[in-house]
Amino acid sequence: MAEHAPDYSAEKIAECVDRFRIARPHVHCITNSVAQHFTANVVLAAGGQASMTIAPDEIESFVAMADALLINLGTMDDDRRLASRKAVEAATWYNKPWSLDPVFVQASPPRLKFAQELLSHKPTVVRCNDAEFQALFREFATHNKITFVRTGKLDIVSQAARNISLVNGAEMMDRVTAMGCALNALMIGFAAVEADTMLAAISALSLYNIAGEIAESRSDGPGTFVPHFLDVLASLEPETLAKHVRFA
Amino acid sequence: MAEHAPDYSAEKIAECVDRFRIARPHVHCITNSVAQHFTANVVLAAGGQASMTIAPDEIESFVAMADALLINLGTMDDDRRLASRKAVEAATWYNKPWSLDPVFVQASPPRLKFAQELLSHKPTVVRCNDAEFQALFREFATHNKITFVRTGKLDIVSQAARNISLVNGAEMMDRVTAMGCALNALMIGFAAVEADTMLAAISALSLYNIAGEIAESRSDGPGTFVPHFLDVLASLEPETLAKHVRFA
Amino acid sequence: MAEHAPDYSAEKIAECVDRFRIARPHVHCITNSVAQHFTANVVLAAGGQASMTIAPDEIESFVAMADALLINLGTMDDDRRLASRKAVEAATWYNKPWSLDPVFVQASPPRLKFAQELLSHKPTVVRCNDAEFQALFREFATHNKITFVRTGKLDIVSQAARNISLVNGAEMMDRVTAMGCALNALMIGFAAVEADTMLAAISALSLYNIAGEIAESRSDGPGTFVPHFLDVLASLEPETLAKHVRFA
Repeated sequence: MAEHAPDYSAEKIAECVDRFRIARPHVHCITNSVAQHFTANVVLAAGGQASMTIAPDEIESFVAMADALLINLGTMDDDRRLASRKAVEAATWYNKPWSLDPVFVQASPPRLKFAQELLSHKPTVVRCNDAEFQALFREFATHNKITFVRTGKLDIVSQAARNISLVNGAEMMDRVTAMGCALNALMIGFAAVEADTMLAAISALSLYNIAGEIAESRSDGPGTFVPHFLDVLASLEPETLAKHVRFA
Repeated sequence: MAEHAPDYSAEKIAECVDRFRIARPHVHCITNSVAQHFTANVVLAAGGQASMTIAPDEIESFVAMADALLINLGTMDDDRRLASRKAVEAATWYNKPWSLDPVFVQASPPRLKFAQELLSHKPTVVRCNDAEFQALFREFATHNKITFVRTGKLDIVSQAARNISLVNGAEMMDRVTAMGCALNALMIGFAAVEADTMLAAISALSLYNIAGEIAESRSDGPGTFVPHFLDVLASLEPETLAKHVRFA
Repeated sequence: MAEHAPDYSAEKIAECVDRFRIARPHVHCITNSVAQHFTANVVLAAGGQASMTIAPDEIESFVAMADALLINLGTMDDDRRLASRKAVEAATWYNKPWSLDPVFVQASPPRLKFAQELLSHKPTVVRCNDAEFQALFREFATHNKITFVRTGKLDIVSQAARNISLVNGAEMMDRVTAMGCALNALMIGFAAVEADTMLAAISALSLYNIAGEIAESRSDGPGTFVPHFLDVLASLEPETLAKHVRFA
C-alpha cells in the first residue's frame, strides 16, 4: 500500500461508486468522433448520462445543464477548438468540474499549444498516458490544484504533494479503442458527486479497471470483451469492487 | 386495447415488417455523430440500407437515391443545418417521407428555433420523448398531417384525431445510447413501404420494442444486450412478433 | 486455383499475417464518421494501431508518424477533402503506402470528381465494390502501378496484367456497417509490412474473410457476429488461416 492509501480505502471507493449511481450525473463530452459512441455507452452503463454536442451557439446551454465537462483533444478541429474554449468558460462560470484529455499531444505542435492554453484555465483533472505526460510535464509542475491521472500498467493519481498508485486493469483494455477516452468521461462524472477529486479519480479508475479484469475473465478476445465490460460496469456490487481494489 | 386498435392489428403490423424486409428501403440519415454507427447497424440488421453523408453538394443526390430521410438534431452544427435544409427541400421535391428527431430541443434556444423551422416544412413523422414534446407542443397542434410519435414507458402514436398507444419495450433500452435515434431511422424506412404512416410507425415501434424485450431476456446487462438486440431485429419471425404486440 | 495463385500460396499469406502482428503498423485513417469506431477496433484487434484526426494543421504530423494512410470518401465534407489532399501530399513525400476507398462514388458527381483527383496521385491500393468500380473504370485502365481490390462474393485483386481471385467470406458481413471500410484500413496496414502489394492485399483479405466465416459459425445474427469477428481477428492461428484460404 502507498503511503497515503489509508486516506483512500477500498471502502471509500466503493461508497463513492454507490453515490455516482444514485446521483446519475450528466457529463457533457467534447470528445473525438472515434470515442463518442463508446463513451456515451460507458457513462450510461455505469449509471450516468452523457451529451456530446459541439455547436458553438449551444455549448453554454449544455454545460449549464450538465454536472461536469470533458474535453478530449483526439480528432481536434476548428469547431471543437471553438466549442472547447466556450465550454471551459462556461464550466468556470458555473463552477463545474472539467477534465482535459490531451490525446496524442506529443504528435503535433498545434495540439500541444492548444493543450497548454486549456491547462492555463486549470482543469479539475488531467488524464493522460506516459508519452502525453512527458510532452506536458513542464506545465504540470506549476499547477498544484489540478489532479493528474497518468494511466498505464500502473495508474498514478497525484495532486500537489499527494500521490496514489493503483494496479488494477486488464491487458485486453489496450486492444479496444477509446478505453482511456471513455474512462476520463466517467472520472469527471465522479468529480461531480465527490468534492475530493483524488477520491473521485481513484474511484472511477477502480470501477473501470476492475470491471476490465472481470470482463477479461469472461471473454475470448477484444470483441466479446466490450459487451461484458459494459455489463460489469452496470452491475458490479460495491462489496465485490472493494475486494478487488489493489493499491500499488 | 385502444379505441382504434382494431384498425392496426398485430397481424397488420407483422405483415408490414415482412414488407420492409422484402423491400429493403434505403434511409438517408442526417444524424448525430454519436448515433451514426449504431443507426446504420440497426437499419442493416432489420433489413434496410443506410447512408449518412452531410456534404451540402452531395445531399440532393443521396436523398434522390434514398427511399426516406431522417433528420436528427443531436450534435447539430452549421454543416448539418445546411445539409438538413437542402435535404428537406429534396425530400419535398421527390416526395419522399422524412422524419424529424428533435433531440434535446428543450436544452438550447437555437436548436428550438431550427426545429420550428423544420416543422414548418411538414415532416411525415416527428419522434421525440416527453421533454422534447413539451418544448414543441404549440407547433404540433397546427400540423394535423404529421404523425407524432412520443416514446417513453408508453408509446403514443397520433395523427390529427387518431391516437394509438403501445406498451412494449425493455428497461435496458434506456441504458444504451442512441436507441431512440436508431428507432427513428427504422420508422421512416417503414414509411417508405407503407403509405399509412400510423401503421408504419407502430410496426417499426413494435419490431423495435419487442426485439428489446427478447434481447433483454437473453442479456446480463446493457453491453450484451446490444448484440442480442441486433440479432433479434434480423431474425424475429412475424408470427412471434404478432404474439408479443401489446396495445395500451 | 487461379493461374497466378502459386505465387501467392496460403503459407505466404499466413506468414504475412504473422509479420503484421509483430510489426504492429500504425494506420492513419481519414475515414467516414460512421466507420471510425469499428475501423479502429478492427485495426487494434488484428494487432495494428490507428489514428483518425482530420485537422488540416495536424495531418502532416500524423501521416509522418504513421506507417500507412487510408482515405475513405464516405461522409466526405470540406474538412475531409482538405485533410485528404494534405495527407496524400505527405504520404507521397514520406513514401508511405496509401489506399483509396471511393465509397458511393457512383452516387454524386462532386465525389466522382474528387476520387478522380485522388487517383491521379496514384494510391498504392484502391478497394471498392462493383458499382464503384464501374464508375471509376476508365481511370483504372491508365494506372498500372495501382493494386485494385474489388470485393464482393468473389474478391478480385489485380495489378497490371496480374490477377488473383479469392472466395472466402460470410453472408453476415453484408449486414454489418463499415465492414469494407475497416478492411481497407487493415489492407493498407499490411502494405506497410509487405512490399508486394498484391500479397499484402490478399493476406489482409484472407485474414478478414476467414475471420468472418469462423465468426458467422459462432453467431446467431449480425449483432453477435461483431464481437466474435473481432475475437477471431485477434486470435486466428496462422496454420488455421492457411487451411481456410480458398483461391477461386
